[in-house]
Amino acid sequence: MTEVRAYEPADIPAMVEIWNEVVEDGIAFPHEDALDLQSGTAFFAEQTHCGVAVADGEVIGLYILHPNNIGRCGHIANASYAVGSAARGKGAGRLLVEDSLAQGRAHGFRVMQFNAVVASNAGARHLYEKLGFVQLGTIPGGFRMPDGSYADICPYYHEL
Amino acid sequence: MTEVRAYEPADIPAMVEIWNEVVEDGIAFPHEDALDLQSGTAFFAEQTHCGVAVADGEVIGLYILHPNNIGRCGHIANASYAVGSAARGKGAGRLLVEDSLAQGRAHGFRVMQFNAVVASNAGARHLYEKLGFVQLGTIPGGFRMPDGSYADICPYYHEL
Repeated sequence: MTEVRAYEPADIPAMVEIWNEVVEDGIAFPHEDALDLQSGTAFFAEQTHCGVAVADGEVIGLYILHPNNIGRCGHIANASYAVGSAARGKGAGRLLVEDSLAQGRAHGFRVMQFNAVVASNAGARHLYEKLGFVQLGTIPGGFRMPDGSYADICPYYHEL
Repeated sequence: MTEVRAYEPADIPAMVEIWNEVVEDGIAFPHEDALDLQSGTAFFAEQTHCGVAVADGEVIGLYILHPNNIGRCGHIANASYAVGSAARGKGAGRLLVEDSLAQGRAHGFRVMQFNAVVASNAGARHLYEKLGFVQLGTIPGGFRMPDGSYADICPYYHEL
């Protein structure tokens, strides 16, 4: 049984580890620098909200939620999701996305937007589409892969 | 005869004035806070590049150019354009956009992306489309107008 709840300070080591797994894979997040406990603590604290997926008392995934832009576009949220490799394919991603939509609404955002979903990330795209996200075309070569090649990206949005 | 060149410190007062005109109109930039000389100097200095349109020795418009995102998406540029109200409709906007594409290329960016073109801004959209920008769908209600209503926005991209 997996539940999603707001993160607590004690979750940060596991959150950093899971986040860094995705950063090091280099095929989903724009971020290239791994977090450590100090930078991770600051990074999660500066988000509008962070949720963690917990199964059997263990953090197996997380998301961060923040404004996608400033001022007159500040009501558009952006979120990033990470599930630890051992826990993938068991539905935690879906729970995280659903919770982020609910938290986005609760924080007064009117739209959720993803800027850089890598086009070849079929699992994520399928999930987003099932949950009602609308694709905003495709930006050719918008993501630099670890081998130096460029992959297409698909922005998505979801009204809240 | 209008030319576009890199900005110089002496241009900053005119740049701030033109920028603030667009901010105060509230129908094109996400920014809501006007610049002053000090914040404007810092803001323009932190851009990858700023160009100014000059006619008869007078700055009549400007653009700012910077990365649209970090890391693996850091090769996507973003730019914002402002033409003083007295100088609009005379081709300065087109020269600014063309120069920004050239400067984006020169700085190693591979794509130019606009995140929040207000759907009702027909003049800007027509210009972008004439210059080869591709629309990435429409985000409903992505821009909060001065009267509190929400206007649709159209992201665009252009390969460099």
